[in-house]
Amino acid sequence: MLRLLSVNFRGITEHKTLLKLKFSTSSVMAKSKFEYVRNFELDDTCLRNCYIVVRLDGRNFHKFSEQHNFMKPNDNRALGLMSRSARSVMEELEDITIAYGQSDEFSFVFKRSTTWFKRRASKLMTHVASQFSSSFVYYWKEYFGEHPLLYPPSFDGRVVLYPSNHNLRDYLSWRQADCHINNLYNTAFWTLVQKGGLTTTQAEERLSGTQAADKNEILFSEFNINYNNESPLHKKGTTLIWEKVNETTTKQIKRPDEVETEITVTRTRKKVTSHSCDIIGEQFWEEHPDILESDQC
Amino acid sequence: MLRLLSVNFRGITEHKTLLKLKFSTSSVMAKSKFEYVRNFELDDTCLRNCYIVVRLDGRNFHKFSEQHNFMKPNDNRALGLMSRSARSVMEELEDITIAYGQSDEFSFVFKRSTTWFKRRASKLMTHVASQFSSSFVYYWKEYFGEHPLLYPPSFDGRVVLYPSNHNLRDYLSWRQADCHINNLYNTAFWTLVQKGGLTTTQAEERLSGTQAADKNEILFSEFNINYNNESPLHKKGTTLIWEKVNETTTKQIKRPDEVETEITVTRTRKKVTSHSCDIIGEQFWEEHPDILESDQC
Amino acid sequence: MLRLLSVNFRGITEHKTLLKLKFSTSSVMAKSKFEYVRNFELDDTCLRNCYIVVRLDGRNFHKFSEQHNFMKPNDNRALGLMSRSARSVMEELEDITIAYGQSDEFSFVFKRSTTWFKRRASKLMTHVASQFSSSFVYYWKEYFGEHPLLYPPSFDGRVVLYPSNHNLRDYLSWRQADCHINNLYNTAFWTLVQKGGLTTTQAEERLSGTQAADKNEILFSEFNINYNNESPLHKKGTTLIWEKVNETTTKQIKRPDEVETEITVTRTRKKVTSHSCDIIGEQFWEEHPDILESDQC
Amino acid sequence: MLRLLSVNFRGITEHKTLLKLKFSTSSVMAKSKFEYVRNFELDDTCLRNCYIVVRLDGRNFHKFSEQHNFMKPNDNRALGLMSRSARSVMEELEDITIAYGQSDEFSFVFKRSTTWFKRRASKLMTHVASQFSSSFVYYWKEYFGEHPLLYPPSFDGRVVLYPSNHNLRDYLSWRQADCHINNLYNTAFWTLVQKGGLTTTQAEERLSGTQAADKNEILFSEFNINYNNESPLHKKGTTLIWEKVNETTTKQIKRPDEVETEITVTRTRKKVTSHSCDIIGEQFWEEHPDILESDQC
Repeated sequence: MLRLLSVNFRGITEHKTLLKLKFSTSSVMAKSKFEYVRNFELDDTCLRNCYIVVRLDGRNFHKFSEQHNFMKPNDNRALGLMSRSARSVMEELEDITIAYGQSDEFSFVFKRSTTWFKRRASKLMTHVASQFSSSFVYYWKEYFGEHPLLYPPSFDGRVVLYPSNHNLRDYLSWRQADCHINNLYNTAFWTLVQKGGLTTTQAEERLSGTQAADKNEILFSEFNINYNNESPLHKKGTTLIWEKVNETTTKQIKRPDEVETEITVTRTRKKVTSHSCDIIGEQFWEEHPDILESDQC
Repeated sequence: MLRLLSVNFRGITEHKTLLKLKFSTSSVMAKSKFEYVRNFELDDTCLRNCYIVVRLDGRNFHKFSEQHNFMKPNDNRALGLMSRSARSVMEELEDITIAYGQSDEFSFVFKRSTTWFKRRASKLMTHVASQFSSSFVYYWKEYFGEHPLLYPPSFDGRVVLYPSNHNLRDYLSWRQADCHINNLYNTAFWTLVQKGGLTTTQAEERLSGTQAADKNEILFSEFNINYNNESPLHKKGTTLIWEKVNETTTKQIKRPDEVETEITVTRTRKKVTSHSCDIIGEQFWEEHPDILESDQC
Repeated sequence: MLRLLSVNFRGITEHKTLLKLKFSTSSVMAKSKFEYVRNFELDDTCLRNCYIVVRLDGRNFHKFSEQHNFMKPNDNRALGLMSRSARSVMEELEDITIAYGQSDEFSFVFKRSTTWFKRRASKLMTHVASQFSSSFVYYWKEYFGEHPLLYPPSFDGRVVLYPSNHNLRDYLSWRQADCHINNLYNTAFWTLVQKGGLTTTQAEERLSGTQAADKNEILFSEFNINYNNESPLHKKGTTLIWEKVNETTTKQIKRPDEVETEITVTRTRKKVTSHSCDIIGEQFWEEHPDILESDQC
Repeated sequence: MLRLLSVNFRGITEHKTLLKLKFSTSSVMAKSKFEYVRNFELDDTCLRNCYIVVRLDGRNFHKFSEQHNFMKPNDNRALGLMSRSARSVMEELEDITIAYGQSDEFSFVFKRSTTWFKRRASKLMTHVASQFSSSFVYYWKEYFGEHPLLYPPSFDGRVVLYPSNHNLRDYLSWRQADCHINNLYNTAFWTLVQKGGLTTTQAEERLSGTQAADKNEILFSEFNINYNNESPLHKKGTTLIWEKVNETTTKQIKRPDEVETEITVTRTRKKVTSHSCDIIGEQFWEEHPDILESDQC
């Protein structure tokens, strides 16, 4: 259309140039005219010298676990995939010193002195949520094999700041105490259903109002299950930290005029390691003194 | 103390119960003792009666596109996958009325009256980032076939509020103007390299300091490419909106004692539709009057 | 160099200079060493294109009004002083286009496009609170004469943003509706006490559960008071705006060889004017179209 | 007008009631209709377990000090009034454990565990700004006598959070280092002007580029002033803390059948005390161990 007009009146080149000039000038002008909207973005820098915790929670994971036939009360494939995804987050993003996960949640702790992404809360939490979610789908097959993922799942996140080591440890203790309480309940509940033959409603009624001791007692006296012997992974959740590990590799070396020799090379490198131990007491922190930074800063 | 006595005099069972009682009581107490840490979470509710825009940007996508051999200047598989992931976000999350994407970014606009997730910024942006990222991996195969995804990619997000229709449209215009400017540059650049035989350094030098008009001219006079005829998808990006569409299905019905008859059923339902058109001017908004809510609210 | 000077005089001087050198160097170093603490200040810029409302409320003003023997139900001296202080705020701080006060509260509306103090919430609200409070004490005597101010009073403040004209008008309507409801109650209450001879407890009981209509009826049938004829200041509160007023001054001018002549000079200038009228309906806003900025921005 | 209409048609009472009913119903409805605007107020709770510092700065105090003929380089009346106002803030508001002032600024430190005003930043800073400002005018006469206050002054405020004792002490050290540097400059500057006969421009040039040691040297060698002997109030500023003080009062007591006897009563109470000492080093903090709360919380 444009071309037709221009041919009729002026010749292609001149007209086109004019048109293009007009077009491009206006679009460049346009962009600068619109750019003021950048200033509506508000700053959300996290207060300095505080631990930055990002916690992810699965969205509608009750339904998700039903649809994917998760084992009750704990599905080790799912827990493994959660841990694998969390490890992916730690390896890709800087300055996460410890992560703790249980059930469909995972918490990531950035060191208090981190300047990653200028401590901007939105960047930190969306990156964690994004990396975790893409990893969850990416590594699905490693844990579920041919059992198909029916749709892409979603996790929501939040940021919480903790000003002291004491507060941070209490946060992690809170999540691990939550793990314990839920797992004891779920273990008792599903044992009553799976081994005791109760309906889910009956199991719920049976456990209603019981204390932890009662649930231990039910498991032990009725099903001969000593809760203390249950899997640490289920009782304690998963703690990921960075540790120095020695890696030994063997290389075959053959120089001209020599016989082939085998050389052993040991290298120390930092690696994400997984633990299912108590993190409420002192022992874990004494054994890993580098996780926390001093309050005296 | 307690424990020694019980082992000595009463036998395992009772002792266990006592031990468990002690354990469980202390862990329940512990949880309530730690729970104060919840109060460190700060409120980040978005101001009411403002459009909430969540923009995602690919992290290190320059490298990602190299590693996955994306076509230059535009890879339609990647653009298709971005759109598919964005559609997944719109279908899963409530109250997004329009989304706009170009290159490795996508913006999602929640209606100004949304109360989804109580308007909490962290929940909104992490959910968008998470759903988009898991979808990106989930649908990869639909767009890239056997071309493998090498690692799970990541997108960061941010939230920006716009108080008026004018501001929101300027935001979307800003992104589309950016798309135009980048695409014109990239088209010229890669044409010089791919068809003109220049090195990337030479192409960069050639384009340095040129106006849009100059780039149009280079494309037209040297390569006989009329930029206006380039793909709207590349020039305008992708706009996703909800539209009512009629869906007609045909059913075979056979009642007893009757011959089989064919019935046509037309149903209207809302569906995410994709557009590659100008959204800076008035026309698009006049054709879709339901996207914006009145400023008079 | 320093040392050279000091060497000339020796003894005490040299020693002192060295000491001072040490002292001053360390203190300068110290300042730069401490300056990192500036970065703990967080940004609190108000979202652009929104009206910024700062509302002040008197702290413990019930007690303050008792101790200073305020008239019941309304003390015109106190209301006058509140208005005078609010005017001082408007005259000293930029970009407040309207202020509304009643009882011990006053709201100040900054125009939506203001860039005063870079829209930093903390600066805006503390300046308003400070200027108002110092003015309240400064102008006390103009309203209370020899009746002494017993101690310095305090007002707390807050910032609220409104994205649309509709929201802002609803905010002001809310405060004026509150004024009406409180004043009707207080008028009925104190009439029952002062003219009806009831105790305050009896008056409270009498009014418990009554509608506005009932209170009007009590005033009219028992005390022959038509509430509609009560003072607009008490029923409607105080609205302050900027208006152009003509100021006419007369000057005596005498040129050489002329007789003295009188010249009248009329100048238009902006002045804060006070109104006790309805600001819920349309009329006020139609008469003062400059207070609001367009939503189409 | 209303009355006339009503007389014509129905008789006063009935009509009035109807009118009032209509009026009052609509106004009550109105208030609830408007009340949604409350929800635009955003939460600004301060992160727990952090020190909350509110700093006030005089607005245009250079001009203010000129207009009120403040002594140069320091006006003890003004400094006294600043301290008096700060003491008023400490006595009226809860949980301020230390305040530090110099020149036209004052910083107030709320203890890290304070729950005053639910830790809402806006309430904390406006209350401090308001109480300080009203006190400044209220106590003016005590310090300036008949020297009149020409207009009500204003102070702006801000809130900054510090997560550790170390950070808080560095903040206070920063302000005291600033006091020292400014006072040394001002002392040298005004000595050059007042005693050396230089113009202000000449004094500025003379001091341009000088180090602290140079300024000490100028004062000592040219004016025989040993800066170390200058007033601690000017060199160190003012630190206000709460201290237990013994107050001894004497009472005359006379019982029946007895002679009058004098009884001495000593009571311990907390009082704001003022100090002009170094707060950068350890000594002050060792002498006042109650100001800081443990980082181990």
